[in-house]
Amino acid sequence: MSEEQFPEVQGGGSLILAWQIKNKRVLVVGGGEVCRAILRRGATNGWPSKVAAGRILNVLNADAKVTVVSPRDGLNPEVAYRIEKGQVDYVDRKFEPSDLDNVDMVLTAVDDPEASSQIWKLCKERRIAANIADVPPECDFYFGSVHRDGPLQVMVSTNGKGPRLANIVRRSIATNLPDNVGEAIEKVGKLRQMLRKIAPKPEEGPKRMAWMIKVSDAYSLEDLCEMNEEDMEALLQFYAPDKVPRFGCLKAMKNEAFDGSFDGSFGFFVGWG
Amino acid sequence: MSEEQFPEVQGGGSLILAWQIKNKRVLVVGGGEVCRAILRRGATNGWPSKVAAGRILNVLNADAKVTVVSPRDGLNPEVAYRIEKGQVDYVDRKFEPSDLDNVDMVLTAVDDPEASSQIWKLCKERRIAANIADVPPECDFYFGSVHRDGPLQVMVSTNGKGPRLANIVRRSIATNLPDNVGEAIEKVGKLRQMLRKIAPKPEEGPKRMAWMIKVSDAYSLEDLCEMNEEDMEALLQFYAPDKVPRFGCLKAMKNEAFDGSFDGSFGFFVGWG
Repeated sequence: MSEEQFPEVQGGGSLILAWQIKNKRVLVVGGGEVCRAILRRGATNGWPSKVAAGRILNVLNADAKVTVVSPRDGLNPEVAYRIEKGQVDYVDRKFEPSDLDNVDMVLTAVDDPEASSQIWKLCKERRIAANIADVPPECDFYFGSVHRDGPLQVMVSTNGKGPRLANIVRRSIATNLPDNVGEAIEKVGKLRQMLRKIAPKPEEGPKRMAWMIKVSDAYSLEDLCEMNEEDMEALLQFYAPDKVPRFGCLKAMKNEAFDGSFDGSFGFFVGWG
Repeated sequence: MSEEQFPEVQGGGSLILAWQIKNKRVLVVGGGEVCRAILRRGATNGWPSKVAAGRILNVLNADAKVTVVSPRDGLNPEVAYRIEKGQVDYVDRKFEPSDLDNVDMVLTAVDDPEASSQIWKLCKERRIAANIADVPPECDFYFGSVHRDGPLQVMVSTNGKGPRLANIVRRSIATNLPDNVGEAIEKVGKLRQMLRKIAPKPEEGPKRMAWMIKVSDAYSLEDLCEMNEEDMEALLQFYAPDKVPRFGCLKAMKNEAFDGSFDGSFGFFVGWG
């Protein structure tokens, strides 16, 4: 095997990860102070007021349990709304070190560099992953611009070069994606579940995966969107002989008697190999 | 402020993060055994042989220091190549608990469920972030399909519904992005650096950021790609008066004497507000 087959290392990136924080406890320190402070310093477009609010939404979308510690005075309206609706737990005071007990992740958005650094140090002592807003060296991770469509998440990072461009690229990606791509992915997930029911044995794992790959490669996203439960039932008949019918044939099966005999011709089946 | 202004929580996602592991130590346990084992179980397309190799490349691309612990026998050729080239440190034996000393992240790809679970438990005791390949409940994080273009990283996650579709979506996104978007982002990063030199005061942070936003919004990605250092120098003349010339005007400045007087008309400047 020659060396040129192996991709070259391209440093300078981040390790982009889908962090699993379902039912984990996330502590958000501050809920609006950054906003007021930066506004005082002269920004007029209001962008920072969304720091705490945006992060709270990020972690709620990933099913985390959230505690917000922040004095009520000066709370960002969206944060106040999440508190009022009971979407987050709330402690109406400034941060205290005991707030870190049993916490899995810490996000801060407070306008006090010393307090921020102190929280960062405590997090590192306790090995808690943390992001101190606006202080890149005191962050285990950065956020990016995320497009969401059902089970699909697309995250754009410019590695700090241009946060605004990340939003522009994210919007351009969202515009160019097929309308129902989230739905198509949901359908594939459903098909995978149905397949696991008809072929549950663990040792069939590789065969199941190989067949799902054939299906994913054989149909367009538009085809997958169009697929209903009846189509999936029909499609699953092709798992045992390890074949995948062309999508037109699959749709045609609904209206015709299908005798289950396969001629194996390339005109009918796709996704070989 | 009415409630409808606030985005609804849409659970079921992951928290997608750009993890910072530059100069952090990542331990990779195993370097090919999964491959051989799954191949033994009947898979024929070779997909799993790339698990350890793919992850090692992921973390090297993020400038991590990598240690691979795996018996030399059965090493994946790409992993062997990285070892031979000195891109990773290597320990030629099975995992031992002391391997976790001073480690910031652990990735395993070993075909021994009991050994894997043991490593997971040790990581949790020591609060080390870990991903046990092929065992979703024993993962602090999942990987997605990543497109890279210089400083730009786009990560596609289907939240486990369809890994193959994630690749398809990623390829479709890469095809639709402007050819030099990575370069455009690099240019904006460069402009930001140059701006920080001519306006270094911390209290100008909000003004710098507001102006960079105007620039990012005023020019197309294609415009940004086309910008050279001379154009950037010209553009920076517009920072003090807080204006952004239309791109055509900016390019024209190279060939014409420019007297620096602004008429403030909307025909000439863009990005107000």
